[in-house]
Amino acid sequence: MKIAVLGGDGFCGWGTALYLSRKGHSVAIVDNFARRLWDHELGAQTLTPIRPLTERLAVWQQLTGNVIESYVGDVTDYDFLASMVSTFEPDAIVHFAEQRSAPYSMIDRKHAVFTQVNNVVGTLNILYAIREIAPDCHLVKLGTMGEYGTPNIDIEEGYITIEHNGRKDTLPFPKQPGSFYHLSKVHDSHNIAFTCKVWGIRATDLNQGVVYGTVTDEVTMDEALINRFDYDEVFGTVLNRFCAQAALGYPLTVYGKGGQTRGFLDIRDTVRCVEIACLNPAKAGEFRVFNQFTEQFNVLELAQLVQSSGKELGLKVEIEHLPDPRVEAESHYYNAKHSSLIALGLQPHLLSNSLLDSLINIAIRYRDRIDPSQFLPTVNWRNARNDRRAENAQPEPVLARRFA
Amino acid sequence: MKIAVLGGDGFCGWGTALYLSRKGHSVAIVDNFARRLWDHELGAQTLTPIRPLTERLAVWQQLTGNVIESYVGDVTDYDFLASMVSTFEPDAIVHFAEQRSAPYSMIDRKHAVFTQVNNVVGTLNILYAIREIAPDCHLVKLGTMGEYGTPNIDIEEGYITIEHNGRKDTLPFPKQPGSFYHLSKVHDSHNIAFTCKVWGIRATDLNQGVVYGTVTDEVTMDEALINRFDYDEVFGTVLNRFCAQAALGYPLTVYGKGGQTRGFLDIRDTVRCVEIACLNPAKAGEFRVFNQFTEQFNVLELAQLVQSSGKELGLKVEIEHLPDPRVEAESHYYNAKHSSLIALGLQPHLLSNSLLDSLINIAIRYRDRIDPSQFLPTVNWRNARNDRRAENAQPEPVLARRFA
Repeated sequence: MKIAVLGGDGFCGWGTALYLSRKGHSVAIVDNFARRLWDHELGAQTLTPIRPLTERLAVWQQLTGNVIESYVGDVTDYDFLASMVSTFEPDAIVHFAEQRSAPYSMIDRKHAVFTQVNNVVGTLNILYAIREIAPDCHLVKLGTMGEYGTPNIDIEEGYITIEHNGRKDTLPFPKQPGSFYHLSKVHDSHNIAFTCKVWGIRATDLNQGVVYGTVTDEVTMDEALINRFDYDEVFGTVLNRFCAQAALGYPLTVYGKGGQTRGFLDIRDTVRCVEIACLNPAKAGEFRVFNQFTEQFNVLELAQLVQSSGKELGLKVEIEHLPDPRVEAESHYYNAKHSSLIALGLQPHLLSNSLLDSLINIAIRYRDRIDPSQFLPTVNWRNARNDRRAENAQPEPVLARRFA
Repeated sequence: MKIAVLGGDGFCGWGTALYLSRKGHSVAIVDNFARRLWDHELGAQTLTPIRPLTERLAVWQQLTGNVIESYVGDVTDYDFLASMVSTFEPDAIVHFAEQRSAPYSMIDRKHAVFTQVNNVVGTLNILYAIREIAPDCHLVKLGTMGEYGTPNIDIEEGYITIEHNGRKDTLPFPKQPGSFYHLSKVHDSHNIAFTCKVWGIRATDLNQGVVYGTVTDEVTMDEALINRFDYDEVFGTVLNRFCAQAALGYPLTVYGKGGQTRGFLDIRDTVRCVEIACLNPAKAGEFRVFNQFTEQFNVLELAQLVQSSGKELGLKVEIEHLPDPRVEAESHYYNAKHSSLIALGLQPHLLSNSLLDSLINIAIRYRDRIDPSQFLPTVNWRNARNDRRAENAQPEPVLARRFA
């Protein structure tokens, strides 16, 4: 298949692009390098030393003979996006090209506005480009399990059948997102569902859990192909951050009680889930929702797993409970369905001691690159302004001026 | 109370501002005159000859002695908005300042993007201004009954209690909006609910039905106070359009079968509902939702009522069924609750023959201003581009360049 991976230079996107290329698909990466810019804005960097995209793609071609095309630009620029769709003629568009950090969206008003405008307009543009140029193209959109929040009932995959006053209907599952970022994904979901209905767009919304890991079979083929590994409080996902903290002998920072339960998955399952969605496209007019995770953990359980693995590696690992900078339930019911991707053939990589060892060892290998000042939360949901770097003027979100 | 009416120069906003002023509240109108600009863009105009805001306000002061302050600017401009909140110090902000036409949002991509960015960013700015400057200020936000769509179960007021697999929770009512405009209101609702939770904002979402009429006690005090009366296919609401068509002897244009059932209300109830919400503020942290309409009709029933009233006035009124330019169910179950505002004291003005007579007579009085080319639908939901004025270059949505 011809698959365009929007945001293909990012964490999930890069792993996905290489995986799809190795599996024989014709892949194009579309990226504006926003993710690299945000590192500069935040003064953070990936634990792993990633290479520029041109170098990554040249090495991939040398190693495999496979060419991954590259389109450099911004999906909020419709002329650019439409030109890419006309030229590449994708069968599927995999859309990772959004601002994906909850804390980033909560820094202040400008970051909230940037996140929502960037994400909503990008997705609207993709929907229009499909409608106008490639009506049969399948949109595979990365959503988030965070769209559902933590209701006191089982979470279904996108829809729920409700009986009420003697009548019945199957309706979109109610959404209770917990940050301006998560809200942007809910906005996207509603916009996509509408265009499936009015234009017959075929779309799959992958409500992804929290991704951990960095290694896929492809990125280990050469040092130049190494993937991101974010451990900072803004873009780092929790398990990766814990491993970096363990490697440096810093306490694992659990927010509040740590009873926050979420769905998690290995990045090797992310890339496979995306392929499964592409190979089994939604029907014309169908807005299909898959919950994309493999296991549920609460944050304290993860910390304890890292603590245990770290001890076996000879590390002294403490767990520290910090006041929760987020507004969220610190313990709650959580039971989310996730059978659709399994039914289509996903074979999960469950979290194991060996995977944790490997993650901690990666963190140890690159420990000189770890900046422990990036561990502690500086963005508090309760504040309208979080002056992360009070010594400087508060920076604008990179790329925000377009919407100011 | 001190009440800021955002969008106070528009149809609902103007009637509301005068009503609140006469009831003794201290009122400020905040407006950027976008609604007047969209008339120029579309080549349409209100049936009634409205005056510039400065003249309206001067006459109001002469007649009543009441001063309504005016702040001219755009709520998507945070500096302007924050300055208004700091200066006026409102107890309540009534937010009508959005692009409110479904067809306008469906013209093409630029109009869709403009509508969503304008509405979402304006509301985000208001939430931040309240949080940062006036944390106790009550947001009274105009939503729409269209957020719910037409589910096959009873529509509750904002929330529904769901029993599922032996557990129970009260969750946001599922949303199925039917245009990019209606989607923007759903996005707003989710954003507001979130800020109530994390910042303790007090907010009331008035999910308003389709408004008809133009006359309130205040706007009839002087010709200079006359309110808008929109009959065009883009901004006109259906009953007002039918009255204009009847006055000119044009057939009433019913889309499809006409079985589309919606909630309706008289503009005299709009203004009263807003006051009721202001006088009974939501609690700190409460996201309260009222369904703001008084009666349900389907479109064909309304056409038949106008036909019947028109005949008594000696008009020959035909009904014509056009292919539905919207994607919507042409007949469906519809039963929406609307008891909260009644419980707080609303005494509805139900649709009557005398009201219909009065509306048709207004249309007859200003019949020379009616442009029948504005009656027929030119925006089809199924198209990604509706070239309303093909002889010209497709105009950009007015004010859109800020987000291009």
